[in-house]
Amino acid sequence: MIAERLKKQIEFIVEIDKLKLIMRQNRLIGTDRNENDAEHSWHLAIMAILLAEYAETKDIDVLKVVKMVIIHDLVEIDAGDTFCYDEKGYEDKECRENKAAERIFNILPQDQAQEIWELWREFEEMNTPEARFAACLDRLEPLLLNYHTSGHTWKKPGVTSDKVLKRAEVMKQGAPQLWEYANELIENSIKKGILKR
Amino acid sequence: MIAERLKKQIEFIVEIDKLKLIMRQNRLIGTDRNENDAEHSWHLAIMAILLAEYAETKDIDVLKVVKMVIIHDLVEIDAGDTFCYDEKGYEDKECRENKAAERIFNILPQDQAQEIWELWREFEEMNTPEARFAACLDRLEPLLLNYHTSGHTWKKPGVTSDKVLKRAEVMKQGAPQLWEYANELIENSIKKGILKR
Repeated sequence: MIAERLKKQIEFIVEIDKLKLIMRQNRLIGTDRNENDAEHSWHLAIMAILLAEYAETKDIDVLKVVKMVIIHDLVEIDAGDTFCYDEKGYEDKECRENKAAERIFNILPQDQAQEIWELWREFEEMNTPEARFAACLDRLEPLLLNYHTSGHTWKKPGVTSDKVLKRAEVMKQGAPQLWEYANELIENSIKKGILKR
Repeated sequence: MIAERLKKQIEFIVEIDKLKLIMRQNRLIGTDRNENDAEHSWHLAIMAILLAEYAETKDIDVLKVVKMVIIHDLVEIDAGDTFCYDEKGYEDKECRENKAAERIFNILPQDQAQEIWELWREFEEMNTPEARFAACLDRLEPLLLNYHTSGHTWKKPGVTSDKVLKRAEVMKQGAPQLWEYANELIENSIKKGILKR
């Protein structure tokens, strides 16, 4: 007899296989295919482990950061990926994502649904060192991929270096050395002609 | 001026983007495409967080388990995915993977290369509760995907329920309740005719 609790956990684990099919705007290096949310989340998790020393505080809770980046895009299973430079898409993003969280997280037993919900809200609100650091990684990874794919996403209409810099601005507080790195990368991208000023 | 240490870390983070292109044997649910190693590693990480209560010991180090599953397949960037029921492929697997670890991990600063190496060895040797629990997740995830894709991988020549059960056997010690669940899933798969006895 398999307990009700384990059944719910397994149902959730099976449901979120769908995250592997949610496509992002940026390309993978050396390919002509876009990245998906599950791959992206994996990349942020290993970055959290390797770059924790650059967080704004030395006693950052790395496990919490890893949990946040692992779950941060789950709502996109229902709400889809909203292009970060799409102002129109952002208008109803919160509403779409709240509805998605409600359905998806509640497949889990209640205590775990609550934990994931709290991690996700903390990530979105960026009011703690862990949430800001997780957001820094979420900004840095597409910068690296765009830099190494001749600015793939940056070629889309309306994308300029100002907007790219603005989007990365959480790094100023959340990971100052990574912010410095991001600035240099953006400056180099303009020089190389893969990002419009 | 970007420090040498950060440059090495970023070089590694860019290099391992390749894990997203290493294909596994199993399919994603509801699609006709196979899973890749990065997606698989993400799935194990969230399973580690949600299923930790089933590990053989209550004080399991969840962050260590998550680190292991996040890095466990990196060597396949060079060594490729070895099908777990391919006896011939297993003959030189260790040699190929050691060489890969040597190249890939050493892109990192020495202390981090050492940490990843130790995590990977611990995972491979399965001598600690964390390593065994990580291995349990690595067995359970493809069971779930195969169950929900009409036994996709199980249709390959030579795959029988005995071999599938044998492969999952680490769960007996590493996560007894998940082992019970796996047995039930395998039994159901035989009844449904998607796994040969």
